[in-house]
Amino acid sequence: MKINYPGGVKPTKITENKETSPKKRHILSAANRGMVLENEINDSNLYYREKNMAIIYKRPTPINIVKVDYSRGAIITQAYFETQSTTDYNGVYKGRYLDFEAKSTKSKTSFPLSNIAPQQIDHLEKVIEHGGIAFFIISINPLNEVYLIDAKYICSFYREKPRKSIPVESIKEHGHLIKEGYHPRLDYLPLVDEFFL
Amino acid sequence: MKINYPGGVKPTKITENKETSPKKRHILSAANRGMVLENEINDSNLYYREKNMAIIYKRPTPINIVKVDYSRGAIITQAYFETQSTTDYNGVYKGRYLDFEAKSTKSKTSFPLSNIAPQQIDHLEKVIEHGGIAFFIISINPLNEVYLIDAKYICSFYREKPRKSIPVESIKEHGHLIKEGYHPRLDYLPLVDEFFL
Repeated sequence: MKINYPGGVKPTKITENKETSPKKRHILSAANRGMVLENEINDSNLYYREKNMAIIYKRPTPINIVKVDYSRGAIITQAYFETQSTTDYNGVYKGRYLDFEAKSTKSKTSFPLSNIAPQQIDHLEKVIEHGGIAFFIISINPLNEVYLIDAKYICSFYREKPRKSIPVESIKEHGHLIKEGYHPRLDYLPLVDEFFL
Repeated sequence: MKINYPGGVKPTKITENKETSPKKRHILSAANRGMVLENEINDSNLYYREKNMAIIYKRPTPINIVKVDYSRGAIITQAYFETQSTTDYNGVYKGRYLDFEAKSTKSKTSFPLSNIAPQQIDHLEKVIEHGGIAFFIISINPLNEVYLIDAKYICSFYREKPRKSIPVESIKEHGHLIKEGYHPRLDYLPLVDEFFL
């Protein structure tokens, strides 16, 4: 059965989920950890929507569809993943447009800029220019810490490129540690209140 | 070659496009007309982005991916279309969050409410509650006219359901005719300025 989850993403179990409990997260592989971050943000957005605090969704992954079999009721039989030309998340909070990208790094010391697509930087710069709130959520996997950091900082680092990666120390200095819990998993809206509104 | 178009959608040719010229639009079939409306809105959004007037994108269609063949470099071999749990378009304009859905009707007299998914009404009501700008763009195909209409009106009609379809007369009365041209195809932002800001 096909189920239409909000945002097209199956929510992870929130109460008892051993695999993604904050304490056990650090033992996960990097690939899993990326999915964990996405699930945690989706959970948090679902929580915010249920509590009527903000309306934020993950954009669906863009797919280039080549072949569809209509004989069995519109089954896509050949398609390719495309790069998101914007960011993963956007929505409305307290009347403001909010837009962000989530990334994780498995390094303890730095976040490689190669993780970010140039069109995402272009997009976030435009969002800022048009009065939107723009940031990154960056998970430093080995530290088991997740930061919210103003897109202005990341974009200017990206443009000036003093280094090919941002030192984790700079992320700690310019970003803000997101409080983790069970519900919401990553409570990032209080940081939006504090630093953007 | 795979090309990543903005918004994941191939822009239509803007200058000389016989098939979709305003004068010839009425001869197109209903299915084509839906695509034409989508293309016209995508073109207009691209124009607005290029002119740095607003940052508005179509959300990619959500796909439920079942099988991926990694032996040939991540080809999706089985997937299904899912219903968008929100609307098709959103973005930022003059600092405000903007969200809308585009629909077309082949009837000269009415727009059937069955064209709108309940979760789209829920979503637009939430957007309004959180201070966003929400509307519908409705194309009345046989009249070759496209209207921008406040989501408040459509949502309240949907909730009260005095009829199963909205009379075109009501759309004309409560909505605003969008000026059509070549560039942008559907110049809807002036109506946002006039009626929402």
